[in-house]
Amino acid sequence: MSERETYLKANQDRYLQQLLEFIALPSVSTDPAFQGAVRQAADFVLEQCRRAGLEPRLVETAGHPAVVATGPQRPGAPHLLIYGHYDVQPAEDVELWDRPPFEPRVEGGRIYGRGACDNKGQLWVHLCALECLNATGGIPLNVTVLVEGEEEIGSPHFGGLLRSLKDELQADLVLVSDTSTPVQGVPTVHYSLRGVVIGEVRLRTAARDLHSGIFGGTTPNAVAALVSLCSKLHDDHGRVTIPGFYDAVRPMADWERENLDRIPFDPEGYLSWIGASGLAGEEGFTTNERRWFRPTLEFNGIYGGYGGPGSKTIVPATAGVKLSARLVPDQEPRTIQRLVREWFQAHAPSFAELEVVDGFCGAPYLLERRDLMGAAERAVEKAFGVKPLFSRHGGAIAVVSEFREVLGLDTLLLGLGNPDDAVHSPNEKFELANFYGGVRASVSLLEELGSGGS
Amino acid sequence: MSERETYLKANQDRYLQQLLEFIALPSVSTDPAFQGAVRQAADFVLEQCRRAGLEPRLVETAGHPAVVATGPQRPGAPHLLIYGHYDVQPAEDVELWDRPPFEPRVEGGRIYGRGACDNKGQLWVHLCALECLNATGGIPLNVTVLVEGEEEIGSPHFGGLLRSLKDELQADLVLVSDTSTPVQGVPTVHYSLRGVVIGEVRLRTAARDLHSGIFGGTTPNAVAALVSLCSKLHDDHGRVTIPGFYDAVRPMADWERENLDRIPFDPEGYLSWIGASGLAGEEGFTTNERRWFRPTLEFNGIYGGYGGPGSKTIVPATAGVKLSARLVPDQEPRTIQRLVREWFQAHAPSFAELEVVDGFCGAPYLLERRDLMGAAERAVEKAFGVKPLFSRHGGAIAVVSEFREVLGLDTLLLGLGNPDDAVHSPNEKFELANFYGGVRASVSLLEELGSGGS
Repeated sequence: MSERETYLKANQDRYLQQLLEFIALPSVSTDPAFQGAVRQAADFVLEQCRRAGLEPRLVETAGHPAVVATGPQRPGAPHLLIYGHYDVQPAEDVELWDRPPFEPRVEGGRIYGRGACDNKGQLWVHLCALECLNATGGIPLNVTVLVEGEEEIGSPHFGGLLRSLKDELQADLVLVSDTSTPVQGVPTVHYSLRGVVIGEVRLRTAARDLHSGIFGGTTPNAVAALVSLCSKLHDDHGRVTIPGFYDAVRPMADWERENLDRIPFDPEGYLSWIGASGLAGEEGFTTNERRWFRPTLEFNGIYGGYGGPGSKTIVPATAGVKLSARLVPDQEPRTIQRLVREWFQAHAPSFAELEVVDGFCGAPYLLERRDLMGAAERAVEKAFGVKPLFSRHGGAIAVVSEFREVLGLDTLLLGLGNPDDAVHSPNEKFELANFYGGVRASVSLLEELGSGGS
Repeated sequence: MSERETYLKANQDRYLQQLLEFIALPSVSTDPAFQGAVRQAADFVLEQCRRAGLEPRLVETAGHPAVVATGPQRPGAPHLLIYGHYDVQPAEDVELWDRPPFEPRVEGGRIYGRGACDNKGQLWVHLCALECLNATGGIPLNVTVLVEGEEEIGSPHFGGLLRSLKDELQADLVLVSDTSTPVQGVPTVHYSLRGVVIGEVRLRTAARDLHSGIFGGTTPNAVAALVSLCSKLHDDHGRVTIPGFYDAVRPMADWERENLDRIPFDPEGYLSWIGASGLAGEEGFTTNERRWFRPTLEFNGIYGGYGGPGSKTIVPATAGVKLSARLVPDQEPRTIQRLVREWFQAHAPSFAELEVVDGFCGAPYLLERRDLMGAAERAVEKAFGVKPLFSRHGGAIAVVSEFREVLGLDTLLLGLGNPDDAVHSPNEKFELANFYGGVRASVSLLEELGSGGS
């Protein structure tokens, strides 16, 4: 047994106890009543960074502080930035919890408590790994730890923080464990995220709403015009009809197909989870392909005419729809935004005034460094006895976009949460096996990266 | 010159002066500040009924009182119920008026003031005609006058009033002058009104709104489902696609076509009035045919997903649309309601929960008594030197429905307002020629009806 393995075995109970103490701090970032606990949690992280041999400090923001900690310099070695967040979701629906959310306990191999998985448990994995490495020969690479306290409220000051610490945070790679695996007990590396293009389209067909008795049947109806227009955005096969929409979609690589085949899909479970009675989407693709590998154009909301209680017999003069496209590599948000705009300009009826409002644009994310994925694969296999899954993810992750945009950095997303960990829900938990395995995997990964594995 | 013509000539200045006094009372029914004037206006009507030889009284309601006046009994003669309202629209946008709205004056052959046309002037026409008849040999038929004070606030107590006075108000016909002619100076008999069927349709495709990144592209989108469904309600020719929708539509009769041809249509003026840049509607029909002779199915409002400011990237779980159909003779509201419901049941996607909410139903109105129309034609031609127009009307008129429903009575709608009388708008006016001509036409009409013309 190696020195590090021996150290881990000797200290893993302490790691767990510390994690339980960490979870016991109700660091709910959205609720001012918990402000004291939020700061205690930041201090708790800071203390652990110190135990790991880092030089930590609190960095104040206009909201909750961040912890920034720097490891000993290792000239020539790569520089890793480890990100996590010490704040948690509220747990005010306490009657739905089988155990008090901030009195964590271990039962049946699981750590129960708010934040157990998201993100205290997964963050603690890496802080313990750093401590172990530091105690057993030293951390083998340059490392900076950045832990924020506002992730659950949308990281409002995170971009500014990155910009203000831009020089200090220069690194080669970001490591984040803040996601879940689709397969119980098998950590998952998310190597791609979908991008997004948001917009709104409004039609006006008259100067004002008109009496449907006096004018009905003779003048354009804004809702009818919008309904007709929007019904043409998808064909009968669930495909977006905008010319060029799919042009830049990168075909699935063989290794992606192999990984995708490892991920089972249970339609009944899926439907029952979302409360739907049928699946939908682009013909010719499975649900997992649709959510991770295919772009979409979804209506997020629609409005027009009278929407209050009862009725109002008008011919509506205005109507609008909110849309968002989810993009996959290599679709370019500005191109898609332009194609959508041009489509509406080409298809809106001549009797309607068209207004297209451009909203937020975010590029899809793709980690193309197969070397990093190889390192992660070996580290996970060593710790868990199983190769990790490599999967795409359907949504965007704000901090990943910020790391790329502000620091120009790729992010390795090593998800240690199980699919049933109930993040953001009552009875949140984190598997002991994932916690201990995670620490071992992190130790191995940092060793790999430090030895030039990346 | 007949005795009546001599009497009218001798008294028409007084009629005008009294009308100006009537208009000067700011009987705005919607505004409690005008409650005193509302009651004064009721008394003013009551007084004129007394001058016409009727026995008038105030009938209190939970709102403003009505005037009910009964003429001397004429056994064997028909019984005419004359309806009007003494309340007026607000005129609080006084800066848009060229003259104070409640300081009526005559300029260039026009009576200016709030209520001049709607409905004080048109009501005064018949009260003066009764006075003239009474003074010159007597009113030649049984007559009841019913003047309410809440028409401009939707006649909330009118149905109850009719029900409570049902026996007393038994008659053969209702006469109402509270509409406008489409052709300057040519009174119009509106012999048909469109009916209405109101409804709402809701779709649910999931238990809750879903994250459009995580689920987008895999699950039904309620807005997309609704948009697709609603886009199928009309075909490319502007026709409603619901089977049977048009089955009961009565073809236009030759005499209707002749009258319709007398009514010009100015597309530029129409479009500029409503602020639209193009006409729309059922292919193969003119605008006047579309608004008066054809049924419609209009979207009155649509909603679904997120409608607030900015964006929310969800897959909406619910969406709904408010609809109303306008019906023409001989369409039956309950039948149309059923056809609409069945259409949605047949076409809603199987993955969506469908809810169809039935709303208000009102039958189309058709006055089939050509004898009455003949009497009105002769009376108008005698007074105005031109035959009246016979036209349908696109909307519903609540009191016409109430008279039919509660009392089982037909209504003769003799519209004396000119198209530019600006009812409900600043600078409302009523033409002196229409006022004086109206009184003469009313005298002739009552003579005709009394002599068994109906």
